[in-house]
Amino acid sequence: MTEVADRIEETLAALLPRGDGPETRVFEAMAYASLDGGKRLRPFLTVQTARLFDVPDSRSLRAGAAIELVHCYSLVHDDLPAMDDDDLRRGRPSNHVAFDEATAILAGDALQTLAFEVLADPATHPDGEVRAGLVAALAAAAGARGMVGGQMFDIAAETDGAGFTLEQIVRLQRLKTGRLFDVSCQAGAILGGANEAERSALAAYTEDLGLAFQIADDILDETGNAAEVGKKVGKDASAGKATFISILGLDAARERANLLALQAVKVLECFGARADLLREAAHFAVGRRT
Amino acid sequence: MTEVADRIEETLAALLPRGDGPETRVFEAMAYASLDGGKRLRPFLTVQTARLFDVPDSRSLRAGAAIELVHCYSLVHDDLPAMDDDDLRRGRPSNHVAFDEATAILAGDALQTLAFEVLADPATHPDGEVRAGLVAALAAAAGARGMVGGQMFDIAAETDGAGFTLEQIVRLQRLKTGRLFDVSCQAGAILGGANEAERSALAAYTEDLGLAFQIADDILDETGNAAEVGKKVGKDASAGKATFISILGLDAARERANLLALQAVKVLECFGARADLLREAAHFAVGRRT
Repeated sequence: MTEVADRIEETLAALLPRGDGPETRVFEAMAYASLDGGKRLRPFLTVQTARLFDVPDSRSLRAGAAIELVHCYSLVHDDLPAMDDDDLRRGRPSNHVAFDEATAILAGDALQTLAFEVLADPATHPDGEVRAGLVAALAAAAGARGMVGGQMFDIAAETDGAGFTLEQIVRLQRLKTGRLFDVSCQAGAILGGANEAERSALAAYTEDLGLAFQIADDILDETGNAAEVGKKVGKDASAGKATFISILGLDAARERANLLALQAVKVLECFGARADLLREAAHFAVGRRT
Repeated sequence: MTEVADRIEETLAALLPRGDGPETRVFEAMAYASLDGGKRLRPFLTVQTARLFDVPDSRSLRAGAAIELVHCYSLVHDDLPAMDDDDLRRGRPSNHVAFDEATAILAGDALQTLAFEVLADPATHPDGEVRAGLVAALAAAAGARGMVGGQMFDIAAETDGAGFTLEQIVRLQRLKTGRLFDVSCQAGAILGGANEAERSALAAYTEDLGLAFQIADDILDETGNAAEVGKKVGKDASAGKATFISILGLDAARERANLLALQAVKVLECFGARADLLREAAHFAVGRRT
């Protein structure tokens, strides 16, 4: 994962805007939001999936970087005072603290735009059908029927969450984080011209992986400390929000996450040993400490 | 223009998400931000330009709607308290007043995503190269090197604006509003497979049109009343911000807007009488009262 993370860092640095003039403040905020940060799990999934189909890394790194840009934009906006009001992200001041709210809103907006600009660029794939397919897939995953819808759902849960069922929480997490995990693998599959069976297997993998990742996140929020995790912890409990832990209890949640990871590993059988790094990612998702 | 505006209204209504669940609040805010509003000047440019090349309206209406979605998202975010802090838009409460700040941020985000989803959909054009070309053009116009960069520039002007030169204001307006006007015509040209000379003529047209439109906007801000214009007026003067009026004076600004409109009309010569409605749009841009 470190190899891909380093190359994504380079790719992002090359894609971010540079220049002179008063507008460069938003360029700096975009770089602050997207460089030196995170596990780069989503681009890792894109690059590893693309390798299953012998896609050159030069293409999958761009597609993975675009998905990471959407992830980073969502973190900047989610941290805003009007949203989750978090002043710590990846162990550093959040974007609106390091800059200001207006700049953070604009930086998030422009990171999203840049994601689609990168996908639509012929450098990502010589075939326009493939590029348009990537744009369509990312937009469907990130929009009102995907990630943004999930964040809206989550904000509603802040007030009504105590009454949420397990089913509702699963649906919430599928929207809020699951759709972006899914498109991370699908982007590799689109670049590689995967067939229906392969795409279904990958969809089943990311569905389990995404849920396992989210349960692990809830466990970290409950048991981790802010310095290690790099963001505020204990938020969900203090907000009285229903989580996998509040519904299942810590032990059963841990057990479910492990089970989901095993299931995720299993659906990749059709790819043989070539998918071993994707299998490791599933175990990493539940075993991580940050 | 009313004909195109009505059909854009229908197109937008059909494209906006609908459904059940707690996330539908963001669907409602997206509809509030994009329906029943505005002159639809940008989609008008797309549809009229596309007609020069005999592109079916069914395609250009989708491309125009996508550009309008980006315009609407930018208005929702610009009106936020952390940005321009406007509580009136198109004669109604701004999105964050009618809903709340978190919902307005998310609605803006999802409107932007939807714009790219619409362009990437095969219903917009059967050729993936054309669809990817549309996505690339809109992203370049809307992002940090275009509209968002212009808004960042403008926020800097709120504090330092008094010292701005005419050249700087022209550059600011090219970024903030000019780029989106430009891509409105270019989208029609991309759909129609226009040649280089035709695209250059259209670029010259929108450069003049966009600047004329902005000067007219400054004039309305100076001389209009809120009820008629549908948004707060006198903002620039009270913010001590440099505008075309503060630098040129009202009469010279008016004269320059008219000159730009005449110039815009002239560069369309290569299209003959077919471009008459685009010519009328240039006169409309400076003569409008809202």
